[in-house]
Parts: sequence; C-alpha cells; structure tokens
Amino acid sequence: MQSITVNLKQRSYSIDIERGAISTFADRHSKMDQVSRWMIITQPNLVDDYGTLLLMSMKKVGLPCDLITVPCGESAKSISQIEKLYRQLLSNNCDRNTLLIALGGGVVGDVTGFVASTYMRGIKYIQFPTTLLAMIDSSIGGKTGVNLLEGKNLVGAIYQPKKVIIDPNLLDTLPKREKVSGFAEMLKYGLIRDKEFFRKISDGSLPNNLNDESLLEESIARSCKIKANIVATDEYESGLRRILNFGHTIGHAFETLTNDGVLRHGEAVAYGMLCSGYISFKKGLISKSEWNEIEGTLRKLSLPKFDIPDHDEILKTIRHDKKNYEGKLHFVLLDGIGNAITNDSLSDQDIVQSLEVL
Amino acid sequence: MQSITVNLKQRSYSIDIERGAISTFADRHSKMDQVSRWMIITQPNLVDDYGTLLLMSMKKVGLPCDLITVPCGESAKSISQIEKLYRQLLSNNCDRNTLLIALGGGVVGDVTGFVASTYMRGIKYIQFPTTLLAMIDSSIGGKTGVNLLEGKNLVGAIYQPKKVIIDPNLLDTLPKREKVSGFAEMLKYGLIRDKEFFRKISDGSLPNNLNDESLLEESIARSCKIKANIVATDEYESGLRRILNFGHTIGHAFETLTNDGVLRHGEAVAYGMLCSGYISFKKGLISKSEWNEIEGTLRKLSLPKFDIPDHDEILKTIRHDKKNYEGKLHFVLLDGIGNAITNDSLSDQDIVQSLEVL
Repeated sequence: MQSITVNLKQRSYSIDIERGAISTFADRHSKMDQVSRWMIITQPNLVDDYGTLLLMSMKKVGLPCDLITVPCGESAKSISQIEKLYRQLLSNNCDRNTLLIALGGGVVGDVTGFVASTYMRGIKYIQFPTTLLAMIDSSIGGKTGVNLLEGKNLVGAIYQPKKVIIDPNLLDTLPKREKVSGFAEMLKYGLIRDKEFFRKISDGSLPNNLNDESLLEESIARSCKIKANIVATDEYESGLRRILNFGHTIGHAFETLTNDGVLRHGEAVAYGMLCSGYISFKKGLISKSEWNEIEGTLRKLSLPKFDIPDHDEILKTIRHDKKNYEGKLHFVLLDGIGNAITNDSLSDQDIVQSLEVL
Repeated sequence: MQSITVNLKQRSYSIDIERGAISTFADRHSKMDQVSRWMIITQPNLVDDYGTLLLMSMKKVGLPCDLITVPCGESAKSISQIEKLYRQLLSNNCDRNTLLIALGGGVVGDVTGFVASTYMRGIKYIQFPTTLLAMIDSSIGGKTGVNLLEGKNLVGAIYQPKKVIIDPNLLDTLPKREKVSGFAEMLKYGLIRDKEFFRKISDGSLPNNLNDESLLEESIARSCKIKANIVATDEYESGLRRILNFGHTIGHAFETLTNDGVLRHGEAVAYGMLCSGYISFKKGLISKSEWNEIEGTLRKLSLPKFDIPDHDEILKTIRHDKKNYEGKLHFVLLDGIGNAITNDSLSDQDIVQSLEVL
C-alpha cells in the first residue's frame, strides 16, 4: 500500500492507494475509534459491482453498516436531494459518530462531503472514489458542492475527509472515455507543477498508456501528491490553489454552454488547457516548441468534437464565474511547462483569440 | 467600546460591546478589506427599528448594501427557506466576497451563519444580535442550525463569524420576558464557571436588576468572556464546551414537549437548571445552602407555569438528543457553584426524581 499525507494539521489525512482496497477495507477499519455506525453513499449503477461487496464485508466483520443511493448525474446535487439524504440518515439512526463512505465519482463525493459537513454540525466521511477523475482530483482537498437552479456548485463547503482510499482495480470497469477525462487532469498536474511527469505520461502512444497498470498506478500517486501539496499550502484557495484551475476557466464555460453529456469534465478541461496554453504562447510565456509539445499531447486525446459556443456567451460565462473577485479574473497561464502562474489582467480579446486553436 | 477576543488562531474574532454601535457600524467598517458587498439579514419586525437604520447608514458611507428578511420564528430555519435565501443572495449579485450581517436573535443568527458557511463554499458574516440571549450566547461560538421535520438543529455547521457587535441600546425595545430568558443564561455562566458573578447578578431584587444599565452592560461583557474562553478551549464541543449545556438537557426536553410559545428558551433552561441543581445536591456535590441559593435565585425569575410533560416522554427525548454519544448521556452537574462537571452515568431515576422540584 502506498500512502500520501495531506498535511493540514489537525485536519491531516492520508490517501491510501492499494489494489484490492475494496476487499480489505472492512478489516482495516474494524477498530476505528469513535465510529458508532457506517453508511455507504453510492449510485445505483455501482451497487452490484462495488456497493454490495463493501457492505457485505463490513457486516461480516461485525460493523453496523448500511447503504443508500443517490441518483446518477447532477440531479443528485440538488438541495431537495440533500434534504432527502439527511432524513434517510436520521431514519437509519445515524448519529454524530456515524462515518459516511462516498463510494463513487465526483457527484457522490460532492454530496456525501456536503452532507457530512452539515449533518448534526459535521460528521466524519471517507472518500472512496471509483473514477480516475475522482481518484486524482475531486476526492482530495475537501471541496464539496451542491447545485442551485442558477448554476453548479453555488452551495458547498470546504470540509476535509478523514481518509481517501484509492483502489486502482476499480478502474477496470471504467469506460474509456471516463479514463481519458481523468487523464486530462493528470496532464494538468504535469503542466502546472511537474514537467518531468508531464513528459513521462505524454510520451508514447496515448491514450493506450492508460492500460499500463504500473504506469497508471504511479501516475495516480504522483497526481495525488501534487494535489495534496497544493491543498496543504492553500486549503481555502486564497492563492496557490488557484493554479488547479488551469484550463478550467474556459473549460467550465464550454461545459456550461454545451448540452449535458456533450463534453465530460476532463474533456472540457483539455480544450480549456489548449486555449490557455495558446494564450501562454501568444504572451511569450512558453516557447514555440513547448506549445507544440502541449498541443500535440492534448490532440492525441481524441477529444469529441463540439460546436464552439458563441464568443460573447463564453465571455459572459467566464466573467460570472464565482471564483472572480470584484470582477477580477484570476486566469491561470503557464510560465513554461511545469510552472503555472495567475494573471489578473487578461483581456476579452486574449480569450477570444485563443478559441482559434479549437 | 469594550472588546473581547475569541481566540481561535486564524479564526479569532472580537466581540465589540458599545452603546450606539448600530449607528457607528457603517463608519467603522467602511474600509473593511476584501468585502465587495454587504447584505443585512433580519426579520420583518426588526426592519423599522433597526434594519432601515443600519441599511441607510451603510448606503450613506457609500457601501453597497441590501437587506433581506426571513420569517419570524422557527419556520425560518427550514431547508426550503435556506434555499430561498441562497437564491436571493444570487439575485442580489452576492459573490464570494459578500459579507452577511445577522441582525436579530438566535433564529436570524442560525440561518445567516448556516448560509454563510455554505454559500459559494463559505463567505464572511458578522453577528449583530438584538436579543439578550443572542448577545451573550448564540452569537458567540459559531454554532449554526437548520431544522428538519424530525427535529431542531439537526443540520448545521460550526462556522465562526468575523465579529460580534453588541449594542446594549437595542435591549431597550426588548420585551421583559425576553430579557428574563437571556438573564437565565447569564445565571448559567455564573453557576458553571464564576461563583462571584453568580452572586453579583443574583443579589438584590431580580429581575429588576435588568434595568440597571451599567450592571447589565458589565454582566453582558462578563458572560461573553466566559463563553469566549470556553469556545476557545474547545471549539468543536469534544470536552469542556459541553458544560455550556448545563440545564439544557432537561430544558430542551421541556421545550420539545410543550407547545410553541409556552416556554422561551431561557425559561426552559432555568427550569432545567433547577432540576440539574437539585440532582447535584442529591448527589452530594453541592451543599444544602448552595442548593438553597440556586433555587432561591431561579424562583425569583417568576417563570411561567407549565404542565410538566409525561416522565417517560421526557426520558425518551433526553436519550434521543443528538449530543449523546453511543447512548451515553453527558449530563452537566455542579460540583459547587461556579464549577460544572459532566457525568456519564446518570440514571433515569435521578432525572425523574429531580422533576419533583418543579
């Protein structure tokens, strides 16, 4: 088992990476202190493959454990669904010492984390991600999110889990498109923080690299380490943590302005990174050869085609992002591969010009 | 102006006590860093006396400020009301750098604090209490709460305000019954932590003491100091903070089991303190003369009469309290006036016996 620590003083926790962790979880946690009850929160489509396995193994070692599901997709992230979850916890006798296990992708992690942060003024939870994207990104750092009609993740909290458990075996059943989406975020870590890592994973014939088990596992660990370090430095996103948004500002606009399902999150981010890389090149922050390297790698992801939204709509969406402070856009650029910086003075024209590369 | 600090490292804040603070607030805060917009959250019945005054003074110094109201009473604390508040903040262009001002009693503080803890993953808020109870208790320590159909405060967070502003002038319009309710919590602070303070405020002809302005102001400050120290020692209520529940375990049961409006919170707590004091006496923790002193003081509050609920119902309600851990009841007793302790092994009989004194 490989273990990475997210250093946050009293809120520190470990990211444990181990093949087969879903089968060993119950044994490893059977003597956890101050936990009176366990509750697995997952999605219907994960019950057969993983939910039942985890639930049964918990019961086998005598742990009081139940399982509840939330709907698939963003609809799980509504306030009314959250209220339903609270009440399900109550009817299952979950008290302050109940520990929730978020078994799923980003949506399950978001709602479980939010419910944990607010049920009885805060209870413990563990992230048990089942997608590559959740393993290397959303399960780490305590961001939770709930949607309003007006937009995504407008409600939430930064509330750290007690642990993140990563079982790379769970990726065996993950659709290739989901893997590529997660892989795009891996490339992001390399681009913003670790040139050597970027070169290592972009080398060779992508995305077939994803099937190389040891490379995949090593890359997961390296990605987690990068994210853990950034979160430990800036838990509440007042500075450094912003660089994690590389490719996300424009990427989010693409996600928002296209129909559901057209672009996966990682795909939108990949397109966003293409634009942001191009802006970095145009501003003279990266060389022509670095730009070629970035573009070449991202093009190999065989991203789905999509209709580029209206430029004014893109700009409007970007300017309305909740991350903006007093109208200032903290745009993330690359000052060389492996070194992200934020820029507060990007013009609309810079952004529109970058859409050329799509 | 008197200022008391709640020491919580990066989350430290001050409790500022000043007559006329509502009129000086805008000037004092006109240069506050990183605040893009202000939003007063209050109740309809407070708009004329205080809401408009604060709003106009904010506008006068050029601060972008709006005001929204929540319904009076516990109905404001439903999940659907919280969702409505989020959406009102959005439609008022409140971003991450908006600062909310909770202008009201405990309910306004609870909902404003909760919304602040979760809107856009957490924004700043200031507590501006208008009741004695809120000034000395609920506005300090960051407890926020939302109700579910199944019970009160089952959802919430511990999320500290940036500041607590206490303007004792606001008590001029407070009904006497509300003052007595707050006064009961003051007596609690004396009983659990400060014998001299207890004697000082229980001396003379209660509750007329409440009209002695300088004694009232001094007592508010002393109460705030006691609460601030306890919260600073144990922010998340894993130990010492539990003593604040003196009189609350049985008191909450009375509140839950009587019709709305029969008992104010402080009145129920006063009755609870009577029972808990009696148990302390029966267990030999306080002397006969101390018990007489406590009983005499509480009886002077001229509490409203109420029908004592069924004993089994009281026990059931107490055992279901969310504060219990693995069925263990952390009951607060007095080991002498001014020194609270917790007891984990109280029997049902101890509790039932204490109801005799009512």
